[in-house]
Order: sequence, then structure tokens, then C-alpha cells
Amino acid sequence: MIILGIDPGYGRIGYGILEKKGNIFNFIDYGVIYTSKEDELPKRLLSIDEQLRNLIQTYKPDESAVEKLYFFKNVATAIQVGEARGVILLCLEKQNIPIYEYTPFQIKQAVTGYGRAEKGQIQRTLKLILKLEKTPTPDDAADALATAFCHGNFRRSFKNARY
Amino acid sequence: MIILGIDPGYGRIGYGILEKKGNIFNFIDYGVIYTSKEDELPKRLLSIDEQLRNLIQTYKPDESAVEKLYFFKNVATAIQVGEARGVILLCLEKQNIPIYEYTPFQIKQAVTGYGRAEKGQIQRTLKLILKLEKTPTPDDAADALATAFCHGNFRRSFKNARY
Repeated sequence: MIILGIDPGYGRIGYGILEKKGNIFNFIDYGVIYTSKEDELPKRLLSIDEQLRNLIQTYKPDESAVEKLYFFKNVATAIQVGEARGVILLCLEKQNIPIYEYTPFQIKQAVTGYGRAEKGQIQRTLKLILKLEKTPTPDDAADALATAFCHGNFRRSFKNARY
Repeated sequence: MIILGIDPGYGRIGYGILEKKGNIFNFIDYGVIYTSKEDELPKRLLSIDEQLRNLIQTYKPDESAVEKLYFFKNVATAIQVGEARGVILLCLEKQNIPIYEYTPFQIKQAVTGYGRAEKGQIQRTLKLILKLEKTPTPDDAADALATAFCHGNFRRSFKNARY
């Protein structure tokens, strides 16, 4: 099973792709989808949609896991991230990829066993368990990889994770 | 010029359609796009996208005006409305319909001359100026009609309204 993990954002959307065979995880890819600050809002949403569609066509994920966020600096940021999330969810739904959601707490717990772990700890643990050559960066990409890993390990045990 | 006004929401998206010829407004349609609470989140976003696309194909608007919201009960609501907004903006952008945004204050001011007017006053004024047979309801539809009217009257005078 190929899992696409996503850390939603507006200017930067992290993605992480893992294959799970039995209990073994194989690392495939991670990275960041960027949108330009110089573009107007609808163009940035279109760019997210296009780049995500390309990613899906390249890696053909069977399932997707999206980080669920609750805390924002202010309402304007929450709406902006919501706009990007809406476009991401619609894109996945249109390609018939099942969508699962996990909170940051669940994701951290899945990777390190501790729901309040720091970012550095998450990244070092990912490097270890996925046998990566280097610590995954930037944060958005590492978070997305952690989200994919969380889904691979816990899709059956978290209640209400699935829509 | 055909103008599509939109009052974004999650379960209810108001729309209002006006034609402007010179300084004359002709009323065309208004209503509400509904999504079912029983459907999962991505299905609801897909439904908004489909219904809005149908509306655009039916009325072929030249420009669109979307209400810009700042205040929400809580962050969860802001994200949800953001998700719907993202899908709406992407849908308009994909069909190459120019998008303009107006705040509730600008919209109220455009209709009644007073930025803090009550909903009832907005609806009665719309009935009068658009020569409607009855007061437009529900609120979402009336707000969307007011947004379209605001755009028709003020697209050149509001700074930064356009993306």
C-alpha cells in the first residue's frame, strides 16, 4: 500500500510518501509544494491543485493521511489554511483516494511514542525507522512523512480518524 | 455583464445573479447551495464544486463577487468555512471567472448607504432597488444578491477589492 501524507498549508504544503508491505515501511519520497506569494489567491489555490494532482499521478497512492490542525495565530491564518485544505481534500476526493485525518498529538505519538515530542526528536526518529540517509527537512516535509507513517501504523486503531 | 455573488459557507452557500446593463440592474436568480450534514467532509466539498459548476454553466457569469469574512465563533468554524471558500475560489478560477472580494461592511454600505445596516433593512432595500416581487430569503441568498449588487456598483471604487 502506498500512503501519501500531507501537512496542509498555504504557501508550503509538505508531502511524504511511504510504501507499507506487511509491517515493513519503504521510504519513497518527501518534499514541499510551494505557492508564490506574488500570485493572487485563486492562482495559488490552482497551483496547489495542479501540483498535488501531478504528485498523485506520479506515485499513485492508495490512501492519504492529512494533518488536522486546531491552533492558529489568528482567524485570518485559520481561514487561509482552511482554503488550502479545502482544495487539497477536494483534489484527493476527485481522484478517489480515501482520506484519513490525524491530529498533531496522534502523529507525534505514532512516531516517538510521546504526543508532545519536539520536532527535532520526530525528525531523528523518522530517519532511524525509515532508514533515511539524512534527517528529513524542512519541517513541513518531515511532518507529512510522520503523518504517512502514523496512518500506516494506526489506521485501524484511532477512532473517528476516518471521515 | 452577468454578476455572480456568493456568500460562502459550509452547509449553505448563498448565490445571487444579476445582470448589469449601463446603470440598470436586472434580477436573474438567487438561491442556496446546500450540502448534507450526513455526508463526509470531502463529499460535501465535492458537492459544492459540482453545484457551483452547474450554476456557472447555466448562467455564464462574466465576473464574480465573494463575501470576505473575518469573524467566526471559533477556529474550527473558520477552518470549515475556509475549506468551502477554497473550493469555491478554485472552481471560479478554473472557469476563468474574475473574482472580486468585498467585506460585509462594504456590501451593506453599497446597498443601504450604511455599513452597519441590519439584515432586514438590506433585504427590504434589495426588494425595492431590484424590483423583486418579494423580500429575498433566506439570509444567505439575500447576502449573495447584495454582494453581486455591491460589485455591480462599486467595482471601480473599492481599493484592493480585486486580487
